[in-house]
Amino acid sequence: MHLFYQPNPPGGLKSDESWLTEDDSRHAVKTLRLGTGDAIAVTDGHGNRHLAVITQADPRRCAYRITDTQTTPPRPFSIRICVAPTKNNDRIEWFVEKAVEVGIERISFFFGYHSERRVFKRERLEKIAVAAMKQSLQAYLPQIDDAVSFNELLKTVDGPQRFIAHLPDGEMPANLARVAKPAGQYVVLIGPEGDFSGMEIEQALAAGFQLVTLGPNRLRTETAALTACQLLNFIHA
Amino acid sequence: MHLFYQPNPPGGLKSDESWLTEDDSRHAVKTLRLGTGDAIAVTDGHGNRHLAVITQADPRRCAYRITDTQTTPPRPFSIRICVAPTKNNDRIEWFVEKAVEVGIERISFFFGYHSERRVFKRERLEKIAVAAMKQSLQAYLPQIDDAVSFNELLKTVDGPQRFIAHLPDGEMPANLARVAKPAGQYVVLIGPEGDFSGMEIEQALAAGFQLVTLGPNRLRTETAALTACQLLNFIHA
Repeated sequence: MHLFYQPNPPGGLKSDESWLTEDDSRHAVKTLRLGTGDAIAVTDGHGNRHLAVITQADPRRCAYRITDTQTTPPRPFSIRICVAPTKNNDRIEWFVEKAVEVGIERISFFFGYHSERRVFKRERLEKIAVAAMKQSLQAYLPQIDDAVSFNELLKTVDGPQRFIAHLPDGEMPANLARVAKPAGQYVVLIGPEGDFSGMEIEQALAAGFQLVTLGPNRLRTETAALTACQLLNFIHA
Repeated sequence: MHLFYQPNPPGGLKSDESWLTEDDSRHAVKTLRLGTGDAIAVTDGHGNRHLAVITQADPRRCAYRITDTQTTPPRPFSIRICVAPTKNNDRIEWFVEKAVEVGIERISFFFGYHSERRVFKRERLEKIAVAAMKQSLQAYLPQIDDAVSFNELLKTVDGPQRFIAHLPDGEMPANLARVAKPAGQYVVLIGPEGDFSGMEIEQALAAGFQLVTLGPNRLRTETAALTACQLLNFIHA
């Protein structure tokens, strides 16, 4: 069954009569050629998955009637990855797509001392996240934050499960898989292509972050970000 | 230090005098502007990492003298992912890049009953694998196989650690993380966008493959392939 996304059901959450967004209406009626009486699923991105029937196949305003609602409880853990936008936009876009597919609660972006990219478009990443949520049949839309400075980012983070991924020249820190405790609220910082500056690492450590590695190999920024996300999901597999 | 790839040192593996491939020679001399006396690292993709000094900065044939050789033993486990080429070539290309970065021994391709793509270019994927090996500073180049039929593929696979990733409608099989034993020679089959056919799954089970899932979400082909690779690496983290 086709899954659609309607964050704010026009009829209101309590109403069983509603309609799809204009984009989804066009997609449902024109592309998928769905018609009156066809069954669809609609998620609000907040855990509610409505089973519904199309009552009016209008390509601009496809109306549906909710027949049943399944509410998925949030996961017993949450993953937040904070990463610097990559020089090549495609790389951060696929990180968002893949992270949403495998499971993530929040993605934050920051400009590090060695960041080469200073332009950031949240809206496009939000679209990619919505598409990935639908494609992977999930009921929750992860939060995508706007990019802020490294200092600003540190102020938005707390909790005991805070990590900064860094491959130092000297002694190898513990692998994230070994130090992350199950069912935590995880936050992992992933540096830009030029890595974190020494001062940024000191700031993070002073703020209570724990230095970790993600494995023996040197990973690209977006690979490291996805690897951290995958690893924290696997702890709960 | 810059890492180059010379699979067949012209001087022979025993000689300490050799030269880079034409591509790498141009890259070293023209792009990186390395000159005589500069230190470089050269891997043969078979575990040998030579520390060397450029003796002749020729952009067509950059000669070097090996000063030291570090041999990395193969990993105590091996990962082979067999996947159907995706409709969109970019997706399988990034899978290869990411799988090589995080660690994989062999990537095989097959055309499944529901495969939409029937054209396959191994050479380009080989280039991507070489670039990823260098970028992640590894000494081994994974084997990239040509695409074969599903039946042909099954004939090339044996060993006890064989899995087929599939999300059935009915009862959920065990997660790969729960059934894969440490230090194994793993083989995982990942289906095309249209998933495996019922007959393909029966064939694999009859051939001794174990049905597994990679998590609760429906993953794209390339995401599933990378997730299986990451998961088997994490078992040994």
